[in-house]
Amino acid sequence: METRHVKITGTGRYLPGTGISAEAIDLRLGTEPGWVMRKTSVANRHFVEEETASQMGAHAAQEALQAAALTFADIDCLVCASGTMEQPIPCTAALIQRALGEEDSGVPCFDINSTCLSFVTALDTMSYLIEAGRYRRILIVSSEIASKGLNWRDKESAALFGDGAAAAVVERSAEGEPARILNARMTTHSAGAKHSEIRGGGSGIPAGSYREETAADYLFSMDGEAIFRQASRLLPDFMEGLLGSAGLAMADFKLVVPHQGSVMAMKLLQRKLGISQEQMLYIAPHYGNVIAASIPLGLDMAVREGRLERGDKVLLIGTSAGLSLGGVALVY
Amino acid sequence: METRHVKITGTGRYLPGTGISAEAIDLRLGTEPGWVMRKTSVANRHFVEEETASQMGAHAAQEALQAAALTFADIDCLVCASGTMEQPIPCTAALIQRALGEEDSGVPCFDINSTCLSFVTALDTMSYLIEAGRYRRILIVSSEIASKGLNWRDKESAALFGDGAAAAVVERSAEGEPARILNARMTTHSAGAKHSEIRGGGSGIPAGSYREETAADYLFSMDGEAIFRQASRLLPDFMEGLLGSAGLAMADFKLVVPHQGSVMAMKLLQRKLGISQEQMLYIAPHYGNVIAASIPLGLDMAVREGRLERGDKVLLIGTSAGLSLGGVALVY
Repeated sequence: METRHVKITGTGRYLPGTGISAEAIDLRLGTEPGWVMRKTSVANRHFVEEETASQMGAHAAQEALQAAALTFADIDCLVCASGTMEQPIPCTAALIQRALGEEDSGVPCFDINSTCLSFVTALDTMSYLIEAGRYRRILIVSSEIASKGLNWRDKESAALFGDGAAAAVVERSAEGEPARILNARMTTHSAGAKHSEIRGGGSGIPAGSYREETAADYLFSMDGEAIFRQASRLLPDFMEGLLGSAGLAMADFKLVVPHQGSVMAMKLLQRKLGISQEQMLYIAPHYGNVIAASIPLGLDMAVREGRLERGDKVLLIGTSAGLSLGGVALVY
Repeated sequence: METRHVKITGTGRYLPGTGISAEAIDLRLGTEPGWVMRKTSVANRHFVEEETASQMGAHAAQEALQAAALTFADIDCLVCASGTMEQPIPCTAALIQRALGEEDSGVPCFDINSTCLSFVTALDTMSYLIEAGRYRRILIVSSEIASKGLNWRDKESAALFGDGAAAAVVERSAEGEPARILNARMTTHSAGAKHSEIRGGGSGIPAGSYREETAADYLFSMDGEAIFRQASRLLPDFMEGLLGSAGLAMADFKLVVPHQGSVMAMKLLQRKLGISQEQMLYIAPHYGNVIAASIPLGLDMAVREGRLERGDKVLLIGTSAGLSLGGVALVY
C-alpha cells in the first residue's frame, strides 16, 4: 500500500442553469419521447449559457473553500483537472485563479489532463506533494463544458453529456486522523485511443482548417461498445492491482464513486465488480457525463447527502479516453 | 531545501526538417533581409512537414531511452509536458504511447500543462512520485508544434517560434550518487494571463465558431513588453525563494538553462540575475522558442556538448503564459 496522509477537507460544485430534461433533449434530437431516457438514463443535465469554464471552476472552488472553512489565502497550489480547456493558452488553472479575483496571489497554477480521469490523476499525483510537505493545501478544480463539443448528429453520445464544475480542497491529515489515500493505480492502453476522441482543434487538425464539411472532426466521437469491451477485459486485473495487492476488497468500501460514461455500462460493471446497490453512487442520471467533474461532483453529492462520513472508505474509479483506467482508494 | 533523489538518466530530441534560416523567414514575412535576425536573434528554427506531435515525441523518447540504455519496458509512467496538444481528446501522452508502438503496455499516460514551463512543472511534480517509490522510471516528453498556431501578420511573434520535441528519462538516484533536485518553485500571476494567449479553440471560443474574419482569435498573440515588465518585477523575489531560501547562489551553477521567449529579453535578465556568459545556455538562436520543449532541448544540447557533467549543478528556469514563473535547481 502507498499510504498518503491526505484529507479532502471541502468540496463544492457549480451547475449552470436550471437543468435540461431528457424530454427536452428528445425534442432537440428529434427522437420519439422517451428515447433519451431509455438509451441513456440521464434524466437531467445542465448546459452553460454565458458561463465560462473558469467562472464555473471559480464558483465551485469558492464553495469548496467555504466547506473547508478556509479562504484562498490558505491555498498554496491550484490544479485544474479537466478534460476540456477554456483556451489553448494559457492553462485553465491560471484562468480560474483570475476568475477568483486572485490574480496577484502568486499561487502556482497548472493543469493535469487525463480526460475523464483528470480529477483522479490530480488527486493521486498531488497527494505525494502534500505528503512531502511541498504544498500544505491544494485546490483541485474540474470544470467542464461538454456542450460546445457535442455532435448532435451522433444522438447517443450527445444525449449523455452535461456541463458543470466541482472542486475539492486537499490537505495533510493530522496525526492520528484516519483520513488518507490507501492505494491508487492508473494504466493506459492506447490501442483504444480511437474509441473516444475529438480529432480537430489541436496541432493535428488545427482550428484554422475548420470547414463546415469537416465540422464533425472538431466534435466528440465515441465508440461506446468498443470502450466497454476493452474496459471489461482490462478491469479484473486492474482491480486486483488496485485493491487485492493492497489487501483491500470491494466490501471494505462504504461508497464507490465511478466515472460513468454511460449508466448502462456502469450497471454491467457494477455486477462484474461485485459492487452492491448501497455502495454505488450514480451521478449520471442527475447530471449526465460531466467528464472529469463527474467524480468530484459525486463526492460532493455523497458528502451533502450524508452518504459519506469521516472514517468511511470510498473508492473513486473510472475509465477515460486514452483508454485509461484509474482509481484511488481512500479513507474520507 | 526540498531534496528529491532523482536523476535524469537520458535525454533525447527530434527536430523536423533541415531547419529554416532567418533569411527564409524574412522572405515569408516580406520584411527586409536581416530584420528577423535583428529583431529575434533566431538564426534557425524547424517547422514540421508531415510529422505529428506524438510522432516527434516518440522519436525524442526513443532517443532518451537509448541514452539511458533502457527500453520502454523499463518505464512505468509517461507524462507529456507540452504547451500545445495534438488533439483535444485524448491527452497527448496516450498518443505518444501509441506512436511508440506501446499501445498494449498499460503504462499510465497523462499530460501536465503550464505552457512553456510544462517540462519544469512535470519534472518538479513527478520527482515526488519517484522519491516516494510510486514510479521507478518516468519518461517526460515535450513535443511542440508552434508553427500551426502562429499569426504571420504579427511578425515579431511569428519569427520567434520553432517546432520540435525533447524528452528525458527520470529515475531515482542510487544511494550516494550526487544527482538530485535541490529545490524548486513555481508562482502564477494571472494578472498577466492576457499577455500571452490563444483565445480560440477551447470551450471559450470553440473551433466550430471559426470564421476567416476571426482567424486571429485562433492564433498566438503576445505582448512581449508587458511580459518582460511583469517578469522583471517578479523575478528578484522569485529567485530569492528558489535559491536564497535554499542556501544557493547563482555562482553555484555550472549551467543555467532558461526558457527563452525572446533572446533580447534573456540578455537583459541575464544581467539582472547575475548569470555569467559561461553559465548561460542560449537555445533560441538555434531552434527558436520551442515552447515547453525548449528547456529539455537545452538540457540535451548541454549533455551532448559536454557542458554538463555528472555532479554539476544546473538551474532550469523560465516564465510561461499564465503568467507563471518556475524553476528547478538540480545536481545533474
